[in-house]
Amino acid sequence: MTVIEELVHSLGEAVLTGDRIGDRYRSDASLTGRSLPMAVVRPASAPEIAIALKICNEHRQSVVPQGGMTGLAGGANPKTEDIVISLERMSGIEEIDSAGATMTVLAGTPLEVAQRAAETAGFLLPIDLGARGSCQVGGNLATNAGGIRVIRHGVTRDNVLGLEAVLADGTVLSSLNKMIKNNTGYDLRQLFIGSEGTLGIITRAVLRLRPLPDGRLTALCALASYADVVALLKRAQQQLPGLSAYETMWESYFGFNCGAEGLRFFETPPAFAVIIEQCTHGLGGERDAFESFLGQMLEDGLIGDALIAQSEKEAQAFWQVREGHALDRLPSLVNLDVSLPIGAIGRFAEACGAALHEAFPSAHVSFFGHVADSNLHIAFSAPDAKAETLHAVDEIVYTLVGRHHGSISAEHGIGTLKRDFLDRSLSPAEIEVMRRIKTALDPNGILNPGKVLI
Amino acid sequence: MTVIEELVHSLGEAVLTGDRIGDRYRSDASLTGRSLPMAVVRPASAPEIAIALKICNEHRQSVVPQGGMTGLAGGANPKTEDIVISLERMSGIEEIDSAGATMTVLAGTPLEVAQRAAETAGFLLPIDLGARGSCQVGGNLATNAGGIRVIRHGVTRDNVLGLEAVLADGTVLSSLNKMIKNNTGYDLRQLFIGSEGTLGIITRAVLRLRPLPDGRLTALCALASYADVVALLKRAQQQLPGLSAYETMWESYFGFNCGAEGLRFFETPPAFAVIIEQCTHGLGGERDAFESFLGQMLEDGLIGDALIAQSEKEAQAFWQVREGHALDRLPSLVNLDVSLPIGAIGRFAEACGAALHEAFPSAHVSFFGHVADSNLHIAFSAPDAKAETLHAVDEIVYTLVGRHHGSISAEHGIGTLKRDFLDRSLSPAEIEVMRRIKTALDPNGILNPGKVLI
Ligand SMILES: Cc1cc2nc3c(=O)[nH]c(=O)nc-3n(C[C@H](O)[C@H](O)[C@H](O)COP(=O)(O)OP(=O)(O)OC[C@H]3O[C@@H](n4cnc5c(N)ncnc54)[C@H](O)[C@@H]3O)c2cc1C
Ligand SMILES: Cc1cc2nc3c(=O)[nH]c(=O)nc-3n(C[C@H](O)[C@H](O)[C@H](O)COP(=O)(O)OP(=O)(O)OC[C@H]3O[C@@H](n4cnc5c(N)ncnc54)[C@H](O)[C@@H]3O)c2cc1C
Repeated sequence: MTVIEELVHSLGEAVLTGDRIGDRYRSDASLTGRSLPMAVVRPASAPEIAIALKICNEHRQSVVPQGGMTGLAGGANPKTEDIVISLERMSGIEEIDSAGATMTVLAGTPLEVAQRAAETAGFLLPIDLGARGSCQVGGNLATNAGGIRVIRHGVTRDNVLGLEAVLADGTVLSSLNKMIKNNTGYDLRQLFIGSEGTLGIITRAVLRLRPLPDGRLTALCALASYADVVALLKRAQQQLPGLSAYETMWESYFGFNCGAEGLRFFETPPAFAVIIEQCTHGLGGERDAFESFLGQMLEDGLIGDALIAQSEKEAQAFWQVREGHALDRLPSLVNLDVSLPIGAIGRFAEACGAALHEAFPSAHVSFFGHVADSNLHIAFSAPDAKAETLHAVDEIVYTLVGRHHGSISAEHGIGTLKRDFLDRSLSPAEIEVMRRIKTALDPNGILNPGKVLI
Repeated sequence: MTVIEELVHSLGEAVLTGDRIGDRYRSDASLTGRSLPMAVVRPASAPEIAIALKICNEHRQSVVPQGGMTGLAGGANPKTEDIVISLERMSGIEEIDSAGATMTVLAGTPLEVAQRAAETAGFLLPIDLGARGSCQVGGNLATNAGGIRVIRHGVTRDNVLGLEAVLADGTVLSSLNKMIKNNTGYDLRQLFIGSEGTLGIITRAVLRLRPLPDGRLTALCALASYADVVALLKRAQQQLPGLSAYETMWESYFGFNCGAEGLRFFETPPAFAVIIEQCTHGLGGERDAFESFLGQMLEDGLIGDALIAQSEKEAQAFWQVREGHALDRLPSLVNLDVSLPIGAIGRFAEACGAALHEAFPSAHVSFFGHVADSNLHIAFSAPDAKAETLHAVDEIVYTLVGRHHGSISAEHGIGTLKRDFLDRSLSPAEIEVMRRIKTALDPNGILNPGKVLI
């Protein structure tokens, strides 16, 4: 029997072929996927995934795991000779353990569904990102997603207590640990988190839950230098226990987006604009403490001006500038996601801006960052950009990142899009150890070949 | 040349043999090590460790990495045919990055030295444990040490941004990342953290630093049931942003230690006594908020009584009971370190106490736990205990732990002492994947053979 015949024989209706394969299996949100796969398998359980993988492994058949297809690195995109395993039918909350503040979910559960279930139980699920409506918990683990709560609760990795994954040979590896402390041998969860579907298919996760905040306090501050951005961050981390965002916009970014949205916050455009946000927990005195912190920072000269949102609407106006949807109207916009030691971000941005403007004098180049997470985003747009332009941009930026001891991917992962630049951030020894791990877990190389590693 | 001749040829004075091998290389703090190794190598740098490992690997020579020898699982104990590589000469702080709040240290640095350097720079190094004066940062990483700050800042794993390790074949793997977000391929740091010297020798680490607190508020509370212990924990996590300890003593433990120390805190001995501690950061209003939280908990009936320490001395008296040094005077005391889902700890302790008393009617059995970290300690002492008694205790406790979906090692690791019970916490598939990782990184099995895995 062919691999497809065997799959159909064992899994029946769960296997789609030919015309039944919809266009949505073609590409993730990077929109770089061109091909439809040979077949799509939509298992309903971990044992069904095990059956599918066992068959594929015996046939040396390449397999591409797909979650919510919101990835930005091309990691979930199939080639015509691949078989897709989609988690879309494996959705559901299995348990919320209120005493332990944990949640056990199936990997195909959309993030937003899991977030709502946590809230209903009186908890915050601390993983959150713009794609929450479509991305899946399994995809979040597979990419070690960052997002908008990292400053307070860490990246996805920091919020996973246990997981279950199916290995290439069909072995179900169940490590559904619920404990904060567990030192029994190697921490196998870590292998799968951030491995972008190349080491196993994640089928379940035990996530940590946190206390649910009851509101937020938001301020927009004007700063004169990157040194002040770092100094203010340090003070905020010391004095605002609920600090939940510290979003830094360079003049290039803040000015462009304020202009495009017709918003004006400060008399003169500041060199840096920072959104500071703090969660409140109904403790009393929280607003006073927030205001007096900002007053102190003004007095100490760390900030030139500060606006405290007096309503949810005002807070949203600050965030509207930060979200920068106006940029989407620029031609061939690319958003590069890199990370650098916090102290180096200012210097890097200067060097990077200069290099890009030198190569592309008429381009739009702007910067904003989750500075507390060491994460910088670079928006680039050039009117008549071709594939070569974008490759040149990657080359310029990632080479500079390497020189500043940074990482070419802060949160989006490597997939196919950054694969050829991996050596800018990793040494040959690191890449070699990755290969050894890959071979140990997937000796036939059937899982997402060509992603992350060549 | 023999392996020792080659080592001496390449590393000279760094190699100790014969009478020059002191007794301290025999055993860690478990005091179960009986043998002196064939040789002790004391390298001064990662390249020297690389030379030593390359030679040993070529000779298929077993190697035991030694840190501060404070481990409690026998992991650093050599056999007569082993060669020890001791990190004791590799001590020093290489950098404190104030902007990024990171510290780069050599693995042989005693933890307390690193803590002091962080404090001098205005930061808290959040790894802390009783053995701080002797244990080394490399040992803390190799065991993924827990300790007394986990509730607020996580285990060691959560505070490591990057590391350097030398592999069995002498490859120096340098992943000295300083970024919070870094999604470039597999997270190799995680492999070495908690692997107890079986996958590589850690030579350097980049650690996260946190804001330095300026004081603490401490209370001792009397509670009526384990359900109340869990409910109070949840409220404390919601309402005390600086919560830094939640230590729970069962009546068996609290009563014994109060009696032995001649201390009396409550009219009637409570079923559970809990120390709640919160760090202060000089924000103002912190003591008021702490007191009003406890007042509210009394009103809500979650606690029966509460004492707030009015001085450092009073706080120390609470901790004196919790530290339980009086127990050390009991014959053949053992302290078992397990973890369980928080909601299951109460039931487990009841079942475990009953089972141990049934098997050893005259034994002392008492419980205390870092309940927020899901960690329970069991103190056991029987007057005429032999090796078989202690093995029977392990058997009873670890089997019950398995039944309650717990872990046989919360923080001390596996080493040799818990190795034979690994299957109580891990499935055959998990153990098999651990073996595959071990073989991938150390194909000749020279690194700490017989530790963690058989
Ligand atoms: C509007 C928008 C905002 C975004 N914001 C952020 C952000 O703030 N931070 C951030 O980090 N990312 C962000 N992303 C990127 C993306 O949402 C995340 O990477 C997300 O975690 C991907 O989840 P997914 O389920 O869509 O995965 P997919 O795109 O389906 O897959 C991503 C990778 O994971 C693998 N995979 C998926 N599911 C599994 C599984 N169950 N087992 C094994 N491998 C699997 C795939 O093979 C692929 O390599 C954003 C994307 C969009 C479109
Ligand atoms: C009084 C006391 C209190 C303690 N309290 C706690 C506590 O609260 N929490 C807790 O978790 N533990 C505690 N411990 C246990 C112990 O202190 C920790 O496990 C500590 O992290 C061990 O560090 P070490 O340098 O002494 O390591 P060692 O005992 O020398 O070695 C421990 C293991 O790590 C390996 N190893 C050591 N250094 C390296 C290296 N550089 N590279 C690779 N492998 C290496 C060894 O081979 C061995 O397997 C306590 C011990 C004592 C004596």
